[in-house]
Amino acid sequence: MDRQDDTSDSSARRAGLPIAGPDVHPLRPVPPLQTSFPSSTKIEVGDLKVPFRSIQQTGGNPDVVVYDTTGPQGHDPRAGLPPRRKDWIAARLADSDGNHTQMHYARQGLVTEEMRFVAIREQVDPEFVRSEVARGRAIIPANIKHPELEPMIIGRNFLVKINANIGNSAVSSKIEDEVEKLQWSTRWGADTVMDLSTGKQIKETREWILRNAPVPIGTVPIYQALEKVKGKVEDLSIDIFMETLEEQAEQGVDYFTIHAGVLLRYVPLTARRVTGIVSRGGSIMAKWCLHHHKENFLYTEFERICELMKKYDISFSLGDGLRPGCIADANDAAQFGELRTLGELTEIAWRHDVQVMIEGPGHVPMHKIKENMDEQLRLCHEAPFYTLGPLTTDIAPGYDHITSAIGAAMIGWYGTAMLCYVTPKEHLGLPDRDDVKAGVIAYKIAAHAADLAKGHPGAQARDDALSKARFEFRWRDQFNLSLDPETAQSFHDETLPAEPAKDAHFCSMCGPHFCSMKLTQDLRDLGEGVSSGTGVDEAAIARGLQEKAEEFRAGGGELYVRVREDLLPGQAATQGAE
Amino acid sequence: MDRQDDTSDSSARRAGLPIAGPDVHPLRPVPPLQTSFPSSTKIEVGDLKVPFRSIQQTGGNPDVVVYDTTGPQGHDPRAGLPPRRKDWIAARLADSDGNHTQMHYARQGLVTEEMRFVAIREQVDPEFVRSEVARGRAIIPANIKHPELEPMIIGRNFLVKINANIGNSAVSSKIEDEVEKLQWSTRWGADTVMDLSTGKQIKETREWILRNAPVPIGTVPIYQALEKVKGKVEDLSIDIFMETLEEQAEQGVDYFTIHAGVLLRYVPLTARRVTGIVSRGGSIMAKWCLHHHKENFLYTEFERICELMKKYDISFSLGDGLRPGCIADANDAAQFGELRTLGELTEIAWRHDVQVMIEGPGHVPMHKIKENMDEQLRLCHEAPFYTLGPLTTDIAPGYDHITSAIGAAMIGWYGTAMLCYVTPKEHLGLPDRDDVKAGVIAYKIAAHAADLAKGHPGAQARDDALSKARFEFRWRDQFNLSLDPETAQSFHDETLPAEPAKDAHFCSMCGPHFCSMKLTQDLRDLGEGVSSGTGVDEAAIARGLQEKAEEFRAGGGELYVRVREDLLPGQAATQGAE
Repeated sequence: MDRQDDTSDSSARRAGLPIAGPDVHPLRPVPPLQTSFPSSTKIEVGDLKVPFRSIQQTGGNPDVVVYDTTGPQGHDPRAGLPPRRKDWIAARLADSDGNHTQMHYARQGLVTEEMRFVAIREQVDPEFVRSEVARGRAIIPANIKHPELEPMIIGRNFLVKINANIGNSAVSSKIEDEVEKLQWSTRWGADTVMDLSTGKQIKETREWILRNAPVPIGTVPIYQALEKVKGKVEDLSIDIFMETLEEQAEQGVDYFTIHAGVLLRYVPLTARRVTGIVSRGGSIMAKWCLHHHKENFLYTEFERICELMKKYDISFSLGDGLRPGCIADANDAAQFGELRTLGELTEIAWRHDVQVMIEGPGHVPMHKIKENMDEQLRLCHEAPFYTLGPLTTDIAPGYDHITSAIGAAMIGWYGTAMLCYVTPKEHLGLPDRDDVKAGVIAYKIAAHAADLAKGHPGAQARDDALSKARFEFRWRDQFNLSLDPETAQSFHDETLPAEPAKDAHFCSMCGPHFCSMKLTQDLRDLGEGVSSGTGVDEAAIARGLQEKAEEFRAGGGELYVRVREDLLPGQAATQGAE
Repeated sequence: MDRQDDTSDSSARRAGLPIAGPDVHPLRPVPPLQTSFPSSTKIEVGDLKVPFRSIQQTGGNPDVVVYDTTGPQGHDPRAGLPPRRKDWIAARLADSDGNHTQMHYARQGLVTEEMRFVAIREQVDPEFVRSEVARGRAIIPANIKHPELEPMIIGRNFLVKINANIGNSAVSSKIEDEVEKLQWSTRWGADTVMDLSTGKQIKETREWILRNAPVPIGTVPIYQALEKVKGKVEDLSIDIFMETLEEQAEQGVDYFTIHAGVLLRYVPLTARRVTGIVSRGGSIMAKWCLHHHKENFLYTEFERICELMKKYDISFSLGDGLRPGCIADANDAAQFGELRTLGELTEIAWRHDVQVMIEGPGHVPMHKIKENMDEQLRLCHEAPFYTLGPLTTDIAPGYDHITSAIGAAMIGWYGTAMLCYVTPKEHLGLPDRDDVKAGVIAYKIAAHAADLAKGHPGAQARDDALSKARFEFRWRDQFNLSLDPETAQSFHDETLPAEPAKDAHFCSMCGPHFCSMKLTQDLRDLGEGVSSGTGVDEAAIARGLQEKAEEFRAGGGELYVRVREDLLPGQAATQGAE
């Protein structure tokens, strides 16, 4: 297998992206990074130039460095992003056995550039990355035809990731809108993006997206296959499907959602559901099975698909075509039947060293969420789980970013590796730019809450820095450390718009004359004065407290004096030790 | 103890509410109920006229009746609401022993009108309500001076409730804004409202709120007590505090947050926290303790407070003055020390038959939430828990309705009886009307998700009705059954604005030519044809499937035909049984 020249094809494509007909409107670039993240600088670490964002604080407080998905800035979308992986891939292809997956290399004991990149990004040992990929417990979706990619890893021993769905439908949306949504979603923290386009120009849209994508791009190829047979499900076949895969593989798609677990025998199990089959891919395959009364060709021809996947290093995202579409249908026989089949398919893919993650629901009440995770781990041999929410109630259309962020945070804590976002428009319409942002932020919250609950090393540093800034009334630092500084600042400005309020030692909630946070400055000084070493000696504090309370009164008893000279930690410590 | 004439005082007050000075702007009434909830009717059930909202569906689908907090509509806020409890209270006071608490009556085996009202509202047996109140596991906050109240119950064996905080500060907000926020928050589902005003006109604001409140009103009396001593914390005393309580009790406040658990010895335990003490009430009492080096007078004089509480039937909301203010400070010694003290105070209050709930945090990562619930149940003898969120991460100011809805849903599932909302403005500014709505809706989601997870009888009916409407493309029913019909419809209209789209058998996500939900109509017919009884006979379905697949193709194989005559359930069942 020899594909050295394919990456240069990719470069050639970047020179002139296909233009999508006369109704193209000029690209509306997203605002500069500084607008969204004031006092932030993009930095690159090491020979692989791993991106991070460094947030500067005031008053000598240390910079806070955060994981960064924003990608290279300032490039013309018509030219695409620089192909940072080009040489890495070319070098490996020069000595190819035809299988180019990260899992294949990992199982040979090789630590690829992608693994080293990921290790720096996650701040773990490269050997740990390799072992997790070799074991199948993590994947690095990275098509060799997508050299623009900044590699990332999906696995439950790494930071929890989020995916944003974009894509037009026959009803709405233009190509340029989708590129803008891609940039906008990575701006706010999307780790991967799925292009779910189903309308016209499906291929052109995807090309624009891939050439501008610093993150892995996933697709559901059956949508395009269906276009090829003019929407006649019964005319689908493995040949048409493979042709579609090849086409998308050549463009550089990093992972394919494939609904190979929708077996003929599971379809009747959905008949009594309140909302039946809600996965588009799942219902396409169910209809095909019904029409032909044959087993799903994605299942019967699965190894043929594996052969293609390993050439390009495309990861499987084994689709949950029978996921529940409402609370009533959660955790039923159809869903868990399919999950068992996805576990069988995982073993087949792994025999080909093809990377796999498993898609999960959907709509699940809180008390049934953990069973999903436990069953997935058991049946799918710890392949990474990738869930859509789940939504924890059905009664709030218009707010499903919230109904689902609850479930997403919980299942992330339980071990889900990637959370597919849900926007406020879910069930109602196609998301616009604001909805994409709302969905991404809600899911960054869920993913980060999960990282905290899992005790991920370093996850809490940003919380602590922000809390410290809050306590010290460093308003601008508090804004800048947040997921969305612009919104935080604008909310503050609504109540206290004047510029000096940014340095005010109070906020609008309590007003200037009483603020609880002030108290602790004094308390801390008192406490420092009587504690010894790292532990807290309560008895000593109680004794010291009485002395200090007298000092406190003698000194004016005013909480709003921030630091009294005579109680500065160093001096107080000496006094308190007496 | 004889206070029969006090309720008529209350009526007299209603005739002319105090007007709040020359800067009063005209009340801006909230829109009519029909605007927020199309196709809904308020209904009243039984001799006690218990309010519900009935949502009408199309196509002969049954009405869905939901719990209703919106209160009587169409009253002039200057006149106040009708005093529905007036006669109930008067009759009981005619034969008074001086203790007027629901717990006192419950422990005597009496089922009050309030308990009967609540039983209908919750659709449980009145005796069960009585026993839970007697046991202290639930409270009915209902000051005898608040006759306008529609009684409600807070306890973990009932629906999870939510509280909305309103109130002005010295910096911002007018009285009329607060009345409007009261009406607006109960419109969207607030079960109780806390008036946290700290600025001028604190008493007038509260009077306006109480006379217009169909829900229990809570306050933090130390705020007003502090105004009485001109903000000098050290001048606070039990006498000034009791005078404040009496004044608020007479106005009809239903529950008081009292920070009696902030003991002198706990204060030093907060000194090493990242954010110290974040409760305003907690920091006031901590400062008082420090200044005088004395024990908290709310603790030492607790029984004196109980004497007042039982005369009016005001419930304690025992404040968590030492709750954590950030992830780093969660579940620490200060917090759990105070919780233990709140448990001791609960036993004292219960000896007076005074109703009690316990306030809880705050900021807690997911993996530390359950310990809060477990410790509260253990240390506080199953008194209802009332938590603020908790926020599950600190990195998203501007989105803390979401960071906290995650924690709120979880702790609600674990057993918290009431969830205090957090708005998007938390930590940044005072909530306006939109923020109040955003906070209430996020918390209705959390509370309902918790009810579902607890398996509360009937909780799932609304989910199922909405999901069925979604499946059957009854768009208007889907909107009307949701928590916020206006928003759901407006989101739908953004993509498919035309009126016929409301009846369309597709949505903008998949477009008109393919929709997964269509498939199941056919599947259901097939399934019905081969199943027997309530169970699903997979083998029979598999056999039937083959026959039906042939029929399916013979009949055109078109999924988009909604119901084929020859496969109507009755006829298909006959065929399938062959």
